[in-house]
Amino acid sequence: MPELRKDPVIGRWVIISTERAKRPSDFKLEPEPKANANECPFCEGREAMTPPEIMAYRNNGSHRDAPGWRLRVVPNKFPALRIEGNLDRRGEGMFDIMNGIGAHEVIIETPQHLNDLTSFSPVAMEELIWMYHDRIVDLKKDPRFKYVMVFKNKGLAAGASLEHTHSQLIALPVVPKRVSEEMAGSREYYSFKERCVFCDILRQEMRDGVRVVAENSEFVAIEPFAPRAPFETWVIPKAHNCRFENAQKKEYEQLARILLLVMKKMALVLNNPPYNYMIHTAPFHQEDLAYYHWHLEIMPKLTKFAGFEWGTGFYINPTPPEQAAESLREARVD
Amino acid sequence: MPELRKDPVIGRWVIISTERAKRPSDFKLEPEPKANANECPFCEGREAMTPPEIMAYRNNGSHRDAPGWRLRVVPNKFPALRIEGNLDRRGEGMFDIMNGIGAHEVIIETPQHLNDLTSFSPVAMEELIWMYHDRIVDLKKDPRFKYVMVFKNKGLAAGASLEHTHSQLIALPVVPKRVSEEMAGSREYYSFKERCVFCDILRQEMRDGVRVVAENSEFVAIEPFAPRAPFETWVIPKAHNCRFENAQKKEYEQLARILLLVMKKMALVLNNPPYNYMIHTAPFHQEDLAYYHWHLEIMPKLTKFAGFEWGTGFYINPTPPEQAAESLREARVD
Repeated sequence: MPELRKDPVIGRWVIISTERAKRPSDFKLEPEPKANANECPFCEGREAMTPPEIMAYRNNGSHRDAPGWRLRVVPNKFPALRIEGNLDRRGEGMFDIMNGIGAHEVIIETPQHLNDLTSFSPVAMEELIWMYHDRIVDLKKDPRFKYVMVFKNKGLAAGASLEHTHSQLIALPVVPKRVSEEMAGSREYYSFKERCVFCDILRQEMRDGVRVVAENSEFVAIEPFAPRAPFETWVIPKAHNCRFENAQKKEYEQLARILLLVMKKMALVLNNPPYNYMIHTAPFHQEDLAYYHWHLEIMPKLTKFAGFEWGTGFYINPTPPEQAAESLREARVD
Repeated sequence: MPELRKDPVIGRWVIISTERAKRPSDFKLEPEPKANANECPFCEGREAMTPPEIMAYRNNGSHRDAPGWRLRVVPNKFPALRIEGNLDRRGEGMFDIMNGIGAHEVIIETPQHLNDLTSFSPVAMEELIWMYHDRIVDLKKDPRFKYVMVFKNKGLAAGASLEHTHSQLIALPVVPKRVSEEMAGSREYYSFKERCVFCDILRQEMRDGVRVVAENSEFVAIEPFAPRAPFETWVIPKAHNCRFENAQKKEYEQLARILLLVMKKMALVLNNPPYNYMIHTAPFHQEDLAYYHWHLEIMPKLTKFAGFEWGTGFYINPTPPEQAAESLREARVD
């Protein structure tokens, strides 16, 4: 059983993932080669190579765990957390521990062996966004879960171990530290200003224009004022709403379009970089929050984080966001 | 002039390091090859290839910026922060910004072209520890600085751009977020228990023994209960003291010995891994703190951090610390 353990100083929970336990000798190995199209477990026709599917968008007449799907969600074969069981919160002397209960799912974004989503049609991209929505709504019914993090790792350097384009989600029994900090920070801003900090950011960025990458009827993509890394990009809905899963249909349509556009621009300007993106949304079991505003954060993996970042939580970014925004804004990808 | 910019949601400061500004095309390059012994600017005899030295431990009769040194400290050639000027804290609309004032120094650990400190004698290691002390004490006199982070990056994957073994330090005009969190967490523990959390950790770990890696008269090296990554190791002084630079002479001697031992064990068990280590100490301009306890944290770079870690601040660690401790404890390196 994996464990959730809490650092007694910082209060940070970590997952000790016994299901994928590594002995020292495992770290001496070179990174495994990524599965090519001939042996990829995510390709159509190899459904038996994954655990049974949790959900899929399928063409009429096709069957569960068989070809004919457009998007397919399966449990992670080496899950960081286990779905069955109780949390069993307990102490170990002064330390705090609970069972590593949660969901760890893989969203296979296409039956074809593509290594990124930049070639997706707007319709395919929209279906991916809907799948994020549908999985969150489903997992929210489980009272053990307090948060679902939807994320995508692309490229070995960004942590993807398979090249067939996919997203992941992890449902957690605790609100993670980074999310609590974002909630606390935006609540503090709200209590001082009586306005949502993200709404204020949007207003200033749209007026200034220097950090804007792209805009459509529902969304703005910007380089944030204080980015942790070169070309960090945020996609923010214009309408205030604390929860991704409660957005409007037209917003999902426009999110698909702007995300596809931004990813194509990034691929062009940065030569198909490895990257991560994450959906930031409010925790479950809370009312609608006036102070929080869901959004998506994209982090291309271009620099290394080292001792200084580990020790301080400070980041050194060699690329001013205004310069990154200009490069992305001017990139022609149509 | 580099800038310090504050994220308005999380309150995290980042350094926009204009001195090393990168255009998009720079990221398309492969990582630069590390300077070999024939062109290394840190080797004895090439003192002219670095900025003029700030401090050095020299053999009798040798001259500044000339051979004859054992340890040499120079400004970083591409500093993240600039030493001259004032902070000039100001707003930019809703955003907060100040000039990137600070010190960024490189501590060249040996005149020889060695790529790690595992072959150092205990005396050479002790001199390195003293140099950390001397630089902190010196920088503390500058009233603009609130914190000095001493750190070491070893190996390209851990962020070292030159292979000649070296440490770095950055003096900051603000207390960094990670340090504030550690202060806040240990203060909270203290206010509840009236005991230092690190003293309590030491007591429990020394009694349990399962996470202990090594011990000498003044220090214990442990795998923490909730490590972020495999083989994360903390070296903690047995005597309560909030500040590294106020330790006793015998503690610096014993720190050199235990650090050398742990680094040798890590090199053996993990096949000379890339790693970072960082000294965690109390901020300047505060009295002696009953709730904080300086220590050194070592993070071998064995796994990749990806979207989940970015989004949540949660870490997935595939190696239980008890297992890592056993491997390191049993490694024979004499």
